[in-house]
Amino acid sequence: MAPNGGGGRSSLALALSPRESTAFDRWALTLVRNGVASARLRFALWDGFELPCDGPPVGTLILKTRRALLNWVWDPDLNFGEAYMSGEVEVDGDLVAVLEEAYRALRGARARPSWWRAANDLARAKANVHVHYDLGNAFYRLWLDREMLYTCAYFPTAECTLEEAQVAKMDLVCRKLGLKAGDRVVEAGCGWGALALHMAREYGATVRAFNVSHEQIAFARERAAREGLAGRVEFVEDDYRNISGTFDIFVSVGMLEHVGLPDYATFGDVIDRALAPDGRALLHFIGRNQPKPLNAWIRKRIFPGAYPPTLAEVFLGVIEPHGFSVLDVENLRLHYALTLKHWLERFDRSTHEIATMFDAPFVRAWRLYLAGSQASFTTGAMQLFQVVLARGETNRVPWTRP
Amino acid sequence: MAPNGGGGRSSLALALSPRESTAFDRWALTLVRNGVASARLRFALWDGFELPCDGPPVGTLILKTRRALLNWVWDPDLNFGEAYMSGEVEVDGDLVAVLEEAYRALRGARARPSWWRAANDLARAKANVHVHYDLGNAFYRLWLDREMLYTCAYFPTAECTLEEAQVAKMDLVCRKLGLKAGDRVVEAGCGWGALALHMAREYGATVRAFNVSHEQIAFARERAAREGLAGRVEFVEDDYRNISGTFDIFVSVGMLEHVGLPDYATFGDVIDRALAPDGRALLHFIGRNQPKPLNAWIRKRIFPGAYPPTLAEVFLGVIEPHGFSVLDVENLRLHYALTLKHWLERFDRSTHEIATMFDAPFVRAWRLYLAGSQASFTTGAMQLFQVVLARGETNRVPWTRP
Repeated sequence: MAPNGGGGRSSLALALSPRESTAFDRWALTLVRNGVASARLRFALWDGFELPCDGPPVGTLILKTRRALLNWVWDPDLNFGEAYMSGEVEVDGDLVAVLEEAYRALRGARARPSWWRAANDLARAKANVHVHYDLGNAFYRLWLDREMLYTCAYFPTAECTLEEAQVAKMDLVCRKLGLKAGDRVVEAGCGWGALALHMAREYGATVRAFNVSHEQIAFARERAAREGLAGRVEFVEDDYRNISGTFDIFVSVGMLEHVGLPDYATFGDVIDRALAPDGRALLHFIGRNQPKPLNAWIRKRIFPGAYPPTLAEVFLGVIEPHGFSVLDVENLRLHYALTLKHWLERFDRSTHEIATMFDAPFVRAWRLYLAGSQASFTTGAMQLFQVVLARGETNRVPWTRP
Repeated sequence: MAPNGGGGRSSLALALSPRESTAFDRWALTLVRNGVASARLRFALWDGFELPCDGPPVGTLILKTRRALLNWVWDPDLNFGEAYMSGEVEVDGDLVAVLEEAYRALRGARARPSWWRAANDLARAKANVHVHYDLGNAFYRLWLDREMLYTCAYFPTAECTLEEAQVAKMDLVCRKLGLKAGDRVVEAGCGWGALALHMAREYGATVRAFNVSHEQIAFARERAAREGLAGRVEFVEDDYRNISGTFDIFVSVGMLEHVGLPDYATFGDVIDRALAPDGRALLHFIGRNQPKPLNAWIRKRIFPGAYPPTLAEVFLGVIEPHGFSVLDVENLRLHYALTLKHWLERFDRSTHEIATMFDAPFVRAWRLYLAGSQASFTTGAMQLFQVVLARGETNRVPWTRP
């Protein structure tokens, strides 16, 4: 039996695993453990065999089938998530804390070489977005804030509610952009439309907001009509590459991660084409301190086609070729960790309702994704950057920070 | 005679130039003009021949010798400065405005290919610094602020005095670093010591400050002793590469420009070696939006060995290899333009005194350097970046901006 009462043995496990672990299984488990050698984690097999760790463990990872064990040895980046999702790996202890421990141990580990550089053409981009963002607005409503913002919030103090922090984030973005009444804004990747509506309602801007998610655009249009803002906010169900016209403000919150390195030049071209001579742009995106592919499991199950870039990758790919001037960069990594903590708590409170919508592996996969994301921001494996740009020539830039 | 009363004909010009310009000279002048074709500038020769420009000119450039004319055609980047310095080129009109017009016209022009990548080894670094910073403290005192800060100031409002703005800059740096009493600071490139003394006096830090300029270090030590801060601020006459020990704060204001690309890896190593696990670093440097060598004349006459990098060059060379996390970037370009305006005004007011210290070409060279620098920041040819870093692992970073 699994130690510490960490979940019973599934019928699947019984079918696939020999009742007693062998010397080979135990040796394979040491390989698994050695992948995160410095982590204060215990590793256990289906029959209760356990590798101890130095000092009190943060948690225990229980491999409940030989298949999960061997797959983990073969490709831990992909198969830990796969096995967790199917229930063949259980975590005994706080999931976020266990993942943080693993992230810290993996620090400095080289990623497996990856030749994944698939460009996201229009069809693929739409398909990628569909997988994630068209899961149903009802699902997201269960655990996002009232405004349905699915990007890093900004907590003026750590005690703010998520609702307050998401409004504060929108105001932070508007402040950094120096947004004022009458400004023409284009938004690349608008989610459920909260920022576009906020810019129109609170600042008097007119906004054209692009998104390829059908469900999100439908939701946003309905909301614009309900709030009487349809005349000032136009939601366009189309790819950012089809943006046309000239705008005072270009804003993109949480989309660059989906663009993919091969299309950075195109993304830069779009900004260059859209931005008025004295315009200003803000890019808000998940990034890294050093280049590394996104975790293979996240790419397979959660965010196909996504890549969190380093600042240098964004500067070289998007910004420098057009001579844009970087005015301001801020790293909000710890705000994203706190945002994810709120999301995970709300997700956990809604587990029963979510279970009526999706199957158990889906619920486990999303729990792992939210917990893992929180851990990656807490441990510094991921960053959240806001970058403000203007054309190199204009002197209509803020004199000091707002 | 030169038009618009723009300076008389020098005896040198008389000796070298034929009394009347030829068809060849006039053709060569069109080549000069075509180098900045869109600039609203007039170009004139020694005998009064003049190429007009569309609309009212911002100023007139008068080439007073055939040598200046042909050298300009051959290598404008280097030889405009050389000829201005010797008096063979005169500028009729406001020097800063004329240079701004030229910078704008040069925008997007490709720099001549340059293979200049000389590494600044210890001896060369010291020699380079000596050329500029050891011109005599008395000279700098004539046109710098009271604190002798020779880097971009920070003007909370454009009406601040230079003295106020330099103190505000020091406080901005300390605030971004979250400096507090008892912090151990190392400063790479400390000038005349104002920031090191400010950190000790106003914030209670202990500081080790490095500089290879003998004159500056002597001045700084004398000041530390006079202010009773010698016990808390140690001025070390040595290269930044010889920094040893561990510090809570690494700060470098206006030195990275002198490091040169080939030594960025070394610079990053020094930060990595010196920074405590929860430490914080601030780099303040002149940079560019796109890579381009420093103007050849500035490199020859003013700043040998200097190179203003792009952010991507700094991130790739100094920051990413060590997994540092970029917390904050601010672009203070317009503050440097205003700082230089103050310096140039003070320089001009001290011309008579400076002329007793140095010869006429020196005074003209420095006027050109200060005016050209102001123009380069006003027109966006140069940027001023402040970058704040921490180690990738630490969560002891500011929650929000101070």
